[in-house]
Amino acid sequence: MTFELLTKDPNTKARRGRLQTQHGAIETPVFMPVGTQATVKAIMPDQLRDLNVEVLLCNSYHLFLRPGHETVARLGGLHRFMGWDRPILTDSGGFQVFSLNSLRDISDDGVRFQSHLDGSSHFLSPELAVDIQSALGSDIMMILDDCLAYPASHFDADRSMKRSLAWAQRCRKHFETVGPLYERPGDTRPARQLFGIVQGSIYPDLRRESAERLVAIDFPGYAIGGLAVGEPKPLMYEIIEQVEPYLPMEKPRYLMGVGTPSDLVEAVARGVDMFDCVMPTRHARNGWLFTKDGHIVIKHSKYKEDCEPVDSTCGCPVCRTYSRAYLRHLFLANEILSSVLNTIHNLHFYLDTIRRIRQFIEFHRFDDILAETRRTGAH
Amino acid sequence: MTFELLTKDPNTKARRGRLQTQHGAIETPVFMPVGTQATVKAIMPDQLRDLNVEVLLCNSYHLFLRPGHETVARLGGLHRFMGWDRPILTDSGGFQVFSLNSLRDISDDGVRFQSHLDGSSHFLSPELAVDIQSALGSDIMMILDDCLAYPASHFDADRSMKRSLAWAQRCRKHFETVGPLYERPGDTRPARQLFGIVQGSIYPDLRRESAERLVAIDFPGYAIGGLAVGEPKPLMYEIIEQVEPYLPMEKPRYLMGVGTPSDLVEAVARGVDMFDCVMPTRHARNGWLFTKDGHIVIKHSKYKEDCEPVDSTCGCPVCRTYSRAYLRHLFLANEILSSVLNTIHNLHFYLDTIRRIRQFIEFHRFDDILAETRRTGAH
Repeated sequence: MTFELLTKDPNTKARRGRLQTQHGAIETPVFMPVGTQATVKAIMPDQLRDLNVEVLLCNSYHLFLRPGHETVARLGGLHRFMGWDRPILTDSGGFQVFSLNSLRDISDDGVRFQSHLDGSSHFLSPELAVDIQSALGSDIMMILDDCLAYPASHFDADRSMKRSLAWAQRCRKHFETVGPLYERPGDTRPARQLFGIVQGSIYPDLRRESAERLVAIDFPGYAIGGLAVGEPKPLMYEIIEQVEPYLPMEKPRYLMGVGTPSDLVEAVARGVDMFDCVMPTRHARNGWLFTKDGHIVIKHSKYKEDCEPVDSTCGCPVCRTYSRAYLRHLFLANEILSSVLNTIHNLHFYLDTIRRIRQFIEFHRFDDILAETRRTGAH
Repeated sequence: MTFELLTKDPNTKARRGRLQTQHGAIETPVFMPVGTQATVKAIMPDQLRDLNVEVLLCNSYHLFLRPGHETVARLGGLHRFMGWDRPILTDSGGFQVFSLNSLRDISDDGVRFQSHLDGSSHFLSPELAVDIQSALGSDIMMILDDCLAYPASHFDADRSMKRSLAWAQRCRKHFETVGPLYERPGDTRPARQLFGIVQGSIYPDLRRESAERLVAIDFPGYAIGGLAVGEPKPLMYEIIEQVEPYLPMEKPRYLMGVGTPSDLVEAVARGVDMFDCVMPTRHARNGWLFTKDGHIVIKHSKYKEDCEPVDSTCGCPVCRTYSRAYLRHLFLANEILSSVLNTIHNLHFYLDTIRRIRQFIEFHRFDDILAETRRTGAH
């Protein structure tokens, strides 16, 4: 067992846990910053460590196309390549193939797609998805799934969910074959892990079938996929509630690609342990900064001579040193440092939200933070 | 006296000195990274301190236009605005007015120009140049000078040099009037300083007249301006040699906008103490990296799977952690981290060159480093 459940909140489904990986333990709930192309955009691994980032998500799709997973493997794997010694979770590439490619051809075997970089043609199969992630040296890999847009008919969602299940089986089988190739004799660290992904769009019967059949395969962790793809927020929360009872209590649950700070709180209340999202980093580069009272758009002229920090209650290195006026100046002057500083602040905000969530769970008072989030509705 | 001459090399004109400013001492010879818009592009002040950067150059022209020197003053001055507590030297804006503006109208009073940002019209006089730099809170200000392109006729160069001299007088007079306004009673730190700038294009008689008449005004430091504007390199060295004897031994000499690492060595050999140049930072963003064996262009395909650091003899944080292959990947993927890491490496290279220059002067063996530079001709 790599996952340990430490505390359960008495009033909600919120949980505190610890997930062991080859590169160390991850405390949960956890937020994973996104390092698409083997870098969290604009900042250095040292800065991520100073922010107490515990695990990164990297995108197989991008690294497969550039610089190539075999190149990364020959250079010693992704951790060494990018100078990051803590855990890495990789997605399978499925989501990017579907979201970045208008030209794709899907069959039960896998999916043919054109590179968004140069139009070259590639074929991604469940087996290749595992090979790519194995070559990268990921601590937590994801199965290849068939990602559906929203809205989808029940018919399409059923077919897509069943295809994802078949791919999950194939990924699992291939993982059991290639996994041992990467094990070193005498290594007592936890082995690499492969997580399943629940699909089924917005249909409770399909979600239940997907969850039950994945659990029958028995993965060390389960993701809820196919959400945050355009559906209304209450519906997203509803689906999490519907899926959760079918996921084993003693395994980590990962809500993919979500979300705002209040999404994190709402999903933790519904039993979710892991999150990733580009929101803090992408918003940072667009000058949108999170504060406890809501966001601020730093280019606004009202900040021209504002000598206050972004958030006067924030203890991040940016708020300790720089004024809103300076951050506004950097943004308007199109300076690289604008992205750097804004990214540090926003990631700190997300990690601080997660820290507070953990503390409230440990004190058995998670409903306090939930009520506060719903009352202020800041994000 | 704010400048102290510590050591003189017995075989060349190289000198080790120390310049006191309101924000601390600067050891010379010194290289000043360029922080045009109140940031050294791509990196944080903490990183500059870790690199042991002692003084920055900021551009009055850019800060006058955006965010405005009065805004910076209201926010507590440039040091506080950008979070930099060590010395800052500002140029007068003259060079940018001449180099960034095709539409400008120069008279003995000053120069009318259009903003490169929005085309708005502005008038820069010697007095305003001092006011801007005073408002920014610069430790070392520069006089406004009339910057001539290369080549220029003797007639044009003579007129331009004399106009620069008249402006130097006016800057000095205005500085003596406004300077005391910024002094705080009981402050024992060195006062702000205003440096003169020698002009005269490539003409020895004009350079000599410019130097002698500036020295008669008596500045605490002298810059050699109007070089590195397209003239052949041997000519640049020759002009430094011609000007140097007319500059007082006990005052710092600053060669503006120069240059390559070997330019630094050659100019120090000719008695120069201070340098600034965008080369290390701009080249970094273009993927051109300095090494002891010459430069490398990181995008080159031969680095695709090169697991060596940029320079195996370099002790910078980038060479200690990252491979050429990773830096190539970041550059090709257009990642912000590419500019960050390359800038750290190149600045480290320049500062290390300066450190070695200082050591060789202290050991009275500067001619060794000069001979090595001429033999390898790496940069």
